[in-house]
Parts: sequence; structure tokens; C-alpha cells
Amino acid sequence: MRTARVFRLSMAHPGDLSALEELIDRGTIRAAEVVAVIGKTEGNGGVNDFTRGYFTQTLMALLSRYLNRPVTQLIREIPCVLSGGTEGVMSPHYSVFCIADNATAERRFPSALAIGTAFSEPVPTEDVGRRAHVESVASAVREAIENARIERLDDVHFVQVKCPCVTAGRAAAAITAGKTPRTSDPNRSMAFARAAGAFGVALALNEIAPGDFDDESLLSDFSIQSPRASISSGVEVECNEVVVLGNSSAWDGSLRIAHRSMSDALDIGAIVDVLADLGIEARPQVAPAAAGRIACVLVKCEPDRRGKVRGHRHTMLDDIDINAQRHIRGAVAGLVAGVIGEGRIFVSGGAEHQGPDGGGLIAVIASQQKAGA
Amino acid sequence: MRTARVFRLSMAHPGDLSALEELIDRGTIRAAEVVAVIGKTEGNGGVNDFTRGYFTQTLMALLSRYLNRPVTQLIREIPCVLSGGTEGVMSPHYSVFCIADNATAERRFPSALAIGTAFSEPVPTEDVGRRAHVESVASAVREAIENARIERLDDVHFVQVKCPCVTAGRAAAAITAGKTPRTSDPNRSMAFARAAGAFGVALALNEIAPGDFDDESLLSDFSIQSPRASISSGVEVECNEVVVLGNSSAWDGSLRIAHRSMSDALDIGAIVDVLADLGIEARPQVAPAAAGRIACVLVKCEPDRRGKVRGHRHTMLDDIDINAQRHIRGAVAGLVAGVIGEGRIFVSGGAEHQGPDGGGLIAVIASQQKAGA
Amino acid sequence: MRTARVFRLSMAHPGDLSALEELIDRGTIRAAEVVAVIGKTEGNGGVNDFTRGYFTQTLMALLSRYLNRPVTQLIREIPCVLSGGTEGVMSPHYSVFCIADNATAERRFPSALAIGTAFSEPVPTEDVGRRAHVESVASAVREAIENARIERLDDVHFVQVKCPCVTAGRAAAAITAGKTPRTSDPNRSMAFARAAGAFGVALALNEIAPGDFDDESLLSDFSIQSPRASISSGVEVECNEVVVLGNSSAWDGSLRIAHRSMSDALDIGAIVDVLADLGIEARPQVAPAAAGRIACVLVKCEPDRRGKVRGHRHTMLDDIDINAQRHIRGAVAGLVAGVIGEGRIFVSGGAEHQGPDGGGLIAVIASQQKAGA
Amino acid sequence: MRTARVFRLSMAHPGDLSALEELIDRGTIRAAEVVAVIGKTEGNGGVNDFTRGYFTQTLMALLSRYLNRPVTQLIREIPCVLSGGTEGVMSPHYSVFCIADNATAERRFPSALAIGTAFSEPVPTEDVGRRAHVESVASAVREAIENARIERLDDVHFVQVKCPCVTAGRAAAAITAGKTPRTSDPNRSMAFARAAGAFGVALALNEIAPGDFDDESLLSDFSIQSPRASISSGVEVECNEVVVLGNSSAWDGSLRIAHRSMSDALDIGAIVDVLADLGIEARPQVAPAAAGRIACVLVKCEPDRRGKVRGHRHTMLDDIDINAQRHIRGAVAGLVAGVIGEGRIFVSGGAEHQGPDGGGLIAVIASQQKAGA
Repeated sequence: MRTARVFRLSMAHPGDLSALEELIDRGTIRAAEVVAVIGKTEGNGGVNDFTRGYFTQTLMALLSRYLNRPVTQLIREIPCVLSGGTEGVMSPHYSVFCIADNATAERRFPSALAIGTAFSEPVPTEDVGRRAHVESVASAVREAIENARIERLDDVHFVQVKCPCVTAGRAAAAITAGKTPRTSDPNRSMAFARAAGAFGVALALNEIAPGDFDDESLLSDFSIQSPRASISSGVEVECNEVVVLGNSSAWDGSLRIAHRSMSDALDIGAIVDVLADLGIEARPQVAPAAAGRIACVLVKCEPDRRGKVRGHRHTMLDDIDINAQRHIRGAVAGLVAGVIGEGRIFVSGGAEHQGPDGGGLIAVIASQQKAGA
Repeated sequence: MRTARVFRLSMAHPGDLSALEELIDRGTIRAAEVVAVIGKTEGNGGVNDFTRGYFTQTLMALLSRYLNRPVTQLIREIPCVLSGGTEGVMSPHYSVFCIADNATAERRFPSALAIGTAFSEPVPTEDVGRRAHVESVASAVREAIENARIERLDDVHFVQVKCPCVTAGRAAAAITAGKTPRTSDPNRSMAFARAAGAFGVALALNEIAPGDFDDESLLSDFSIQSPRASISSGVEVECNEVVVLGNSSAWDGSLRIAHRSMSDALDIGAIVDVLADLGIEARPQVAPAAAGRIACVLVKCEPDRRGKVRGHRHTMLDDIDINAQRHIRGAVAGLVAGVIGEGRIFVSGGAEHQGPDGGGLIAVIASQQKAGA
Repeated sequence: MRTARVFRLSMAHPGDLSALEELIDRGTIRAAEVVAVIGKTEGNGGVNDFTRGYFTQTLMALLSRYLNRPVTQLIREIPCVLSGGTEGVMSPHYSVFCIADNATAERRFPSALAIGTAFSEPVPTEDVGRRAHVESVASAVREAIENARIERLDDVHFVQVKCPCVTAGRAAAAITAGKTPRTSDPNRSMAFARAAGAFGVALALNEIAPGDFDDESLLSDFSIQSPRASISSGVEVECNEVVVLGNSSAWDGSLRIAHRSMSDALDIGAIVDVLADLGIEARPQVAPAAAGRIACVLVKCEPDRRGKVRGHRHTMLDDIDINAQRHIRGAVAGLVAGVIGEGRIFVSGGAEHQGPDGGGLIAVIASQQKAGA
Repeated sequence: MRTARVFRLSMAHPGDLSALEELIDRGTIRAAEVVAVIGKTEGNGGVNDFTRGYFTQTLMALLSRYLNRPVTQLIREIPCVLSGGTEGVMSPHYSVFCIADNATAERRFPSALAIGTAFSEPVPTEDVGRRAHVESVASAVREAIENARIERLDDVHFVQVKCPCVTAGRAAAAITAGKTPRTSDPNRSMAFARAAGAFGVALALNEIAPGDFDDESLLSDFSIQSPRASISSGVEVECNEVVVLGNSSAWDGSLRIAHRSMSDALDIGAIVDVLADLGIEARPQVAPAAAGRIACVLVKCEPDRRGKVRGHRHTMLDDIDINAQRHIRGAVAGLVAGVIGEGRIFVSGGAEHQGPDGGGLIAVIASQQKAGA
């Protein structure tokens, strides 16, 4: 049976993969087992955040060295999903997802963490944020679910997609070529790309039907949402990269995943509840021993478009000095880190259509405990 | 007996005092009762944050109109302590502290919230961040405690001081005049001013003795701290403005104050504990009914100087794009707001020597409940 | 005959009008002569820039004191057009435009600087950035030209308009009221408001005809532009405020105005040319003596939408950390200040439809020299 | 004889070296000829600017591939000096410095551009910004001058040094090890490192003597300066990297270098003068044909510490939202680009002790013209 393992590693800067290198050198991880990486780098998370490209280049060069396969091939096989911006108490880190086949292992739990990945074709600039983009994502998500051998869609808990977006330069090039990008504004484009990703996940998970939306629904009809979609967007990718996480009886392993919707940026209850789903108590903070069971924390959040949080005006959307996504990441990470008791959490902004409007989602991977343990 | 009341009011922008105006017009507040204002405006909190000056000018013009006394006099009598920066989920708001004498009121509680204020002489530019500054603060704090009729120093729970600082311009002027400012760097000057304020509070509260420190101790010996000091610094004040909050049997009223040290930016326990001190339960969030008892939440925090929070690297101090104080305010406000359930909280950065190194403090004012209520 | 005077004054902070106060106290300016103020405050120039409101409040309170007329009336009579953001070498300052009737003055020059002002009705949130907004501006501009007694439209050299825009809050309110704002994005709204202002000026100056555009032309058809329009937008105004500057034989006075289009952000030739129009030589910098003749420098500029300046990629539009308008203001101000030899210049971003696409305009007011002088 | 060539190349992002790759593939440049790279990447230029590390990693991997030598060796042999931050009209680009031996070439000019490089030993964290650091730089500069075969120190026109600095993390590590870093503040450390670099250049060029300064002189005695020093500082280097540029009769080639001090940020005269030194006229802008002769423009600048430019207050030092170095780079680049007529110019902030206080320097490399050409 297949076993999933997750290693959460710190970095000194976006080009520092020494922690992974050490684990490979020590034999803890075999390079061939690495199937995906999800991490937080210390950039600004915007169009001009190159910490993601820097990390990716370094990771792929490292794996290329160990695997003796060209970088150009690896970047089409191993999703590397990075969210820039470690505002406030967040700590730059990356989670390495590994799959091993351990034929002889005694079965420990009825089901366990399952991982699947997929890559779409490149998305043309003029498709970004439109139905063609949605369908491209949906198709890749379905492929990843199949790869993960997850039989029931209910057992999918987290679908990470990294979508390409439009820079000012790409937009200009498309226009010159007679195409009409959905927008030439890079930040706006990132938002449309995230919306397309969320619609694609919702479509693949049967949360919506193909007739439920058209191009105009993106960034407009916020009743359409997937509570299991986590979408990033960045200049450094050209196709949609997908990582599906769920639980499956086809997998053995000690890890398990759960998720909850966050109704808004103050929804501490969702954090406590998702931990409870995994048998971890927070009163008010997870005790150090239990915290050791937590392998990965994945959060999406969003500055409320309507300008208020629980009835009181916030200033995130009107701030010219700090991008609204940086604001909300810092706030929600402060809350999640306070409950969890540490800052190595993946909190990503831009949660349009990913969970309730103005809220988002939280997923946690933790080791299971045997009954009676 | 004297009664303290606190009104927490929202603003649409830093020049919007309409909520206070309405309360005065309706007769809920008499203008003469207003003794202090503490608030959060939506600036950046730095040297070039003029939202504080704008709010203060508007407030004083308003009170001047109702009181028929000149603005120049009012600004020397009514401390208006503002912290700029409503990062993340914080909502711009201000708390109006009022004192009324209600001779006929039946005594309801053994003790209640007591308020005292004081102003020091102007602090010369070259004194900012030095012993003369510390002593100027201490003297004003002692005066405010006496004004508040708080007999035991243990009953002081929160001392807010607003200290003047040095701008590039003021520093240049002082140097031209043959003086030596402690620093010409405006941000550094704000930090020294806050340190002097904290030392002054500690001195007044007998937490340290005059021989325990010299000029070099400021921003250097972080074992010296006052867990009840909250210091702001800004270009818009020239003398130290002090507001002392505590509980006293000389006061009647429904309000009461408590405080706790926060050991670091993840200390959710301190938040839950200070609420428990006031009989308010958070599991994990304060229920709406109990939240209605909360009149004011005052928090100081600080990006850990040593570059780590609970062993994991943070990036606040190395970020050129977002000031470290803006980072930490956003993170801690996210945590406190999540427990309290709303964003009208005063979270101020720059907590040097105010509570544990890398941490800070939280004080909450809430209405008391009669036994059996 | 009427005489126009312009006083360029420095400020220590956005609430500092002491330089004007001193001139009034000394009798140099009579408060009743002040008809308009145009200035640069040291905010960020965005939706959350409150330095403009702070300055305006302070100015109006000052004039109210001298004129014994209520502030509410003055703000509807005296345009106070502020552009936030003194990036780089720009120095915070304001130009006070005064009109005096000096019946006995000997005529010195055939024509001289003429000033006219006007205010439109408030612009409803849902009209911002649409034809109704354009027409409202055009009507006010025509009124101001008439007030200025400028007979030929060719003699109009600079039309400053300050337009209201939409904040997240106003947009939400309009939507609740069943209206459809052109956009809910505050920055986008400021851009649409500026576009409407530029179209309005072009319409009033007969540069375009009413049938030449529809709502879709704004921020889309950049062939439509007025090389004499300078539009600001901000949250602090509700109606369009207009200041028209030109030359007229109906005025006496030593000042004169000229303007030039800037073809792009590197168009140093336009700067040298507009100075030459006024008989001032720059080789490469204006000599101190000639610089003393310059009374006011007004510049509009814009980060090129197409992502390049003279064929080379710029990064202004993709920068999440610094707003693109702050980038371009700093660059163009560096160039203009280098030619002029000082930093008290009004350089305002957001030049959509104001001069050539990717460029902008420069207008200079300088004292005339008698023939032979 | 040796010939120096300089290729100024554009990049689409900090990891894009495709322009260089193409020149090597086409045979225009042989990889072994590359001796140094100086460029501008589109980061923020601060401690947390990783675009420099990203570019360097990409460059070294590229050269390693062509040269079949390990990256670890190349980074100790080829200085790659990057300045982050392409504010305003600056365009991300890099200049590749190549040396070829062309034995058969006919001598064209009496002297020509000469290039020398050197690397110091790593600088311990506690030495950064102290005399040991100064001497380490001076020694490396002397070595580079010798390598460049420049016989007279007067013929040295530009000395670029990249110095290591202290991050919050490195400072903490040093303190733990019982060392005392000059400062723990990363930005302050970058300034001290630049000061040490400038003192080192001045020492090597005999502009100052060893007894002229002590540790306290750095960032304090601004009468000490080198008008030919250009110092950058960054987290990604551990030793001092030096590139010396001058003219020498030992070199053949069409290029020549000149430099001028800039007295302040408005010193357009220095720009025109340095071009005149190379026979290039700017009135006011360099004509396209002459612009084609310009191979490289190198500028250092600094926000005036005293808070004023030519008597008028600037706001760069008090701005919490935009780093002062980003402000000044944008302003000075706007001026230089306006004269030169394009944005591919290297403008680097942090010019402490590099040229006049509040000013800086400009160096230009251009092709020479035969007499009569």
C-alpha cells in the first residue's frame, strides 16, 4: 500500500533548501518520493514576488541533481505551490509531500492521507479568468483525484491549485497579438485566475454544475464557492498545477486530514473544530505534546469585500501602502498561530469563491492516534 | 462619588467625530465630562502618520465649540492618545473616557474604574529618550494616580503615556542649536521615547528604583519593564500626556479594569485570563451577550527583537516594505479580535520595556455584574 | 482691473498653515483675496490619504477666523485642490491664488494671468466615472472660464479639477440603495473619476464634441485627451471643484502662464520649452535669478499603461509594495526639479486622458519681464 | 592587448538571463570572457530583497553550464554586483563586462576602458562596519587595480564594491557566540557596511590616510568620502566583491569611462558634464545617435540626511511606507534617464561617504570616436 508522509521544513531565505537536502542526504527522504511541495516564502505575494520563482528554481535544481533528470521535466511533474508573504508571526517554511510504497507494512488505520497531483496544459493569456480556464482546472483536479485513488468526493478535503495570471507585459503582448485579456491589471488578473481555479475545483467536486455559471459569475456571484479549494496565482507558472489531499482506504500511513470553512476572519471556532476533528484539543492553545502531532496547517482567507468584519469597518481595501492580501494574511495567521502555538502555517490570501464570502477555509494534517493510545 | 464611563465609538475617517457629537447633542455625554480619549486611527503609525493630528484637531475644535474654551487650552487638559494603524481586522474607533459626579447614586460595587490624567512640561528635543525624559514621565504619572484617587499602586492596571519624539527636522534644528539629540533617525527616536515612557511608568509604580538604570539602559536592558505601561509616541505632541486607569473604592460605577502580561505574540492564554479576571468566558470566543459587557480593549505588542517567535524565524524586522510595527499590530490584533469577536480593539506596537521582551500586555475594561446577576 | 497673485508657501506638516497666517497677519495677503489653493501634501495620494482633508480643514478654519464666515460656506466657494504624495525630492507646499482689484494700477503688460473658479453640484456615487460626471465637470469648467473673463479658449492653459470618487464604503452604500457604481474598487474609482474630469475639460474647451465618446471611452480610448486638464480625485470632496488658469487682457499683473504636453516620462524637452515660452532659459538648469521668477510649477504624469518607457520595461504597474502613482510622481518630479532647481513643484499622478498616453503636461506660472528688462 | 567590452542587457524578471544566453549561443560573447556583472533587479533593495540572490544563482548556473566549472567556484571569481529596486522609470537590466585578448588588433585609441576584479576573505559579522572591514575592502581594491593594469590612481573612475551586511538572524547568532555586532538593525547594518566600503575605496585610492578615521567616523564624519566609490550591501554575499573601472594605455578597445561627483539630487550639471567628458552632448537630452554610444550609466545617490534639498524640506527620511533609498533612487533615476533618454541606468541608493554628503556620483562608459569621426 501507499503511504503519504509530510515534512514541514524551515528556510533561512527563499533559496535555502538545505533542510530538505539534509533529509535526503541522511536517507530520511528518497528524492524520488517527493511528489509535491507547498510552502510560504517571504515575498509580498503579489505579481512582483520573485521569491516563489527563486525557491522553485532552487528546489528543482536540487531534485534534478539527486534524480538525474532535467529540471525542465521535473517542473512539469512535481507541483511546487508557494504563497508569498509571511506577514506578522508567520514563519517561512515548506511542506514536502512524499509517497512511498511499503508493501510489507501492517495496516494501522482504516484510512489515511492520500495525495494526488496533476498538471494542465498551459493557459493562454486571453483564457485566464474565463470558462476555458475553469474547465482546464476542473479537468486537472479530476485527474489528480484519480491519481490519489480517492473513491468518494466527500473524502477530498483540500485541493490546492496554482494558476497562471497576466502581467502588464503579457497583457500587452496578447493585445498586440489581437487577443483580449480579461484584464490588463496584474492584481485584478490574479484575482480572476483564483476565481477560475475555485470554480474549477467546485466543478470537479460536483459542487456546481457546468450550467451554473458563465464568465460574468467570476468575482461577481460569490454564492458560488468551493469550501475545499485553495487557489494561488503567480507569474511563475504557465499551466494549472494541482495537488489533491484527502483520506482514502487505499492508503496506509499515520496521517489524516480534516477541513472546515471559516465564516469570516474572526472564526476561531473553525480552527478549534478542525483540530477537534483530528482529536486535538485547544483550550485555548494546543498543548505542546499535541502540537507535535500536527504536520501541516493550510488556510485561505480574504479581506471582506464589503468593507466590514462583523459590522465594523475595516481599512484593508482602502490602504494604498499595504496590499489588502498582506493585511488579511497577517491577521488570520495571528489568530491561527495563537491557537496552534506556532508560526509555521500556510496562510494564503485571495480566497475569492474559496469558502464563504469574506471568510475562507482551514485544513489540518495530523498524525492519527491508535484507539487507546 | 465619582463615576467613570467609557464610550467606544466608530469613525468613518480620522476627521470624523460625528458619533461623539451626536452623543453630546442627545445629552448622553456632557462635553465637560470628557477627560481623555484613546483611539486607533487608520494611518501607518509612524513619524509621517498625520491621522493622529487630524483627529486631535477635529476633537478639540468640537469640544471647544461645546465648552466655549479655546483649543489651545483644551489640548493641555484633555489627553488624546492615538495610535495610528488599523492593520488587518482592526476597526478605526476611539474610546471616550468621562467622569461624572453623581452624589445621589446608590453604591453598587465595592470598587470601580478610576481615571486620572496629567500633562508634563514640554520635553526638549535633546532630552527625548534620556533620564530627564524618564523623570518627566514619572512625575506626571504620580500626579495622575493622585488625581485618580487610587490609593494602592497595585490597583493601577494601565498607564497610557503619549511621548513626543524627534523628526528629522527637529533633530536638525537641535543640532544647529548646539544640542545633541539621542538620535536623528525618526523611527529610532520613537523607540527611545517609548522606552523613556515605560521607564517613567515603572519608576512611578515603584517597579524600579532611580538607581536601577541609566541612559544606556533604554532599548538595551530589556529586563527592565513595566507590565502596566502602554506608551505611544508621535510627532504631534510636545509634552508627555498621561492617562492612568485602575480600580478604586473612591469611585462608583459599573466598570472595572483588569490586565495581564502577554509573554509573546502567541499568548492567547493571557487574553482568556484577563477576560476571566472580569468574569467573562471565552471558549473559544466570547459569546455575543458577554461581549456586550466589554467597554474597551487595550493591547501593547512588539515584534520579537531576536527574530524568532517560539523558536521559528519571523520576517517582521527584515521587511523593507512593511514596517515591523504594522506587522505585529496586525498579527496580535487578529488573535485578540478572534477571541473577543470584534475589531474595535486598541492594539499598539512599540512595546519596548512594556511587558515581557517580545510580548506586551492586555488590559480590558468591562461592566461588572452584581452577585447573582 | 483685476490682478492675480500667487504665493508658494512651505508647510511643516499637513496641518501647518502658519506661512499663510503670517502673510495675512503682515497684511501681504488679505484673506478675502484668496480664491483657490493648489498644493502637495505628504500623504500617499491614495484613497486612504487623509493629509488632504487635514490640510483643508485647517485652511478653512483659518480663513473662517479671518473672514468671519462659516467653514461650511467657504469650502463651497474656495477650491482647495491637493495632491497627496511628495515622493523623492518634492517638498510639501501650497500655492495660494489671490485676486485683487487695483483700479489705479498702471497697465504693465498686454495680458496677464487670469483665474476663475467654480463648483458643481455633488456627484452621486453611481454617476462617478460616467457621462453625467463628464457633463457636470464641463459645465463647471465653462462657468470658471467665464468667471476668469478669458475670451478665447486658446488662452486657457491649465484647468485643475478635483473630482469625488468612490470608497469601499460609499460603493457598498450605493449598492444597498439599489444603485450600480461604475466600480467598487477605490483605486479604480479614482481613475474613472479622473477620466471623467479630463473628458469634461476637453468638452468645455471644444477639444472633443459630445458625440465623440460614451461611458465605455473612459479609461479605454486614450486618443481622447485634453492637454490642458489636470485632474485629481479624492475621498474628501463630493462635488467637482474647478480652477481655470489662463492669460487674459482683462487682467493686469506681472504673472503669466504657459503649458506644454509631455510626450512621456522622459520628456525633458517639454520642461525646457515651457520655460522658454516664458522667457526663462535652462541650460541645463534654470539659474537662481531666473528661478526667482517662477511662481508655480504644475505637472501631471502617468505610469505608461503599456509597461514600457521608450521601449524598455518599467516595473511600476507590477509593484505591490509601492503604488504606481507614487513611482511615477517621484520619477517625473526628479526630472522637473532637476531642471527647475528646486523641489516645490506640484507633480500629480493619475494623468489618464490628460495629455498624451503615458505622458502628461506641465504648466508654469512666472513673472513677466518688461521688454528690455 | 586586452580589450574590454560591455553588454547592457534587459531581463523579463530576476531569473531571466536569456539575453546573455543568446549572445553566448550566437558566439558574440564567449562565456570565459565574462569577468563581472553589474545590474539592477526589480526588488526593493533592502535586506529582504531576494531578487539579487535569484539573479546570481541563475547567472552562475548558466556560466557553470558553459564553462563546465562548479558554481561554488564561479561565485568566488566573478563579481555579480546587483542593486535591487527599479523605481520609477528605471528598467531592470544588467551590464556584462568582458575581457578579451586580441593580439592582432590595431591600436585605435591611446587608452581605453580597463577592468579589474577581486574578492576579499569573508567578513565576520562582528567586523561589519568597523576598521577591519575597511581594511579588507582597501586590500581587495588595490588587488583589483593591479589586475586592471591601471598605473595611475587618477585613471581609476569607478570602484564598485558589494559588501556583506548583518541580518537580524546573523546578529542574533553573533551575539550568542559572544560577539558584538556593530548593530542588530539590518538596515542600519547595510548603511555601516556601505560606509566601510567607501572608506576602503578612499584608503586604496590614497584619498584618505589610515590615521584619518576610526570606527566612530563611519556614518558620522561625512567630510570623509570617495568620489569614485559605489558601494552596495546585501545579505547574499559574505565577502567583499570588487570591480574597478578606469582607463589605461595597457588596454585597447573602443570604450572609455568618465565620472563626476553629484553635489545633490538636483545636480543635472554633473550629468551633462560627465557626458561632455566623453564627447556626448545633451541639450537638453542626448540625441538618439549619440545615445547609441553609451554603454553603461552608473549612479550613486542618497536622501539628504539633513532633511532638506536646496533649502526645502523633503519627506524621504520620515516616510514609514516607502524606504528612503527607494525614494531617492526613483527621483535621481528620473533625472538621469531624462537627460540620457532611457531607463536602463544603474542608480543605486545608499551613497554614504560616496561623493558629497547628500549627493553622490555618476560614471558613464561610452564608445570613443576617432578624431574627425
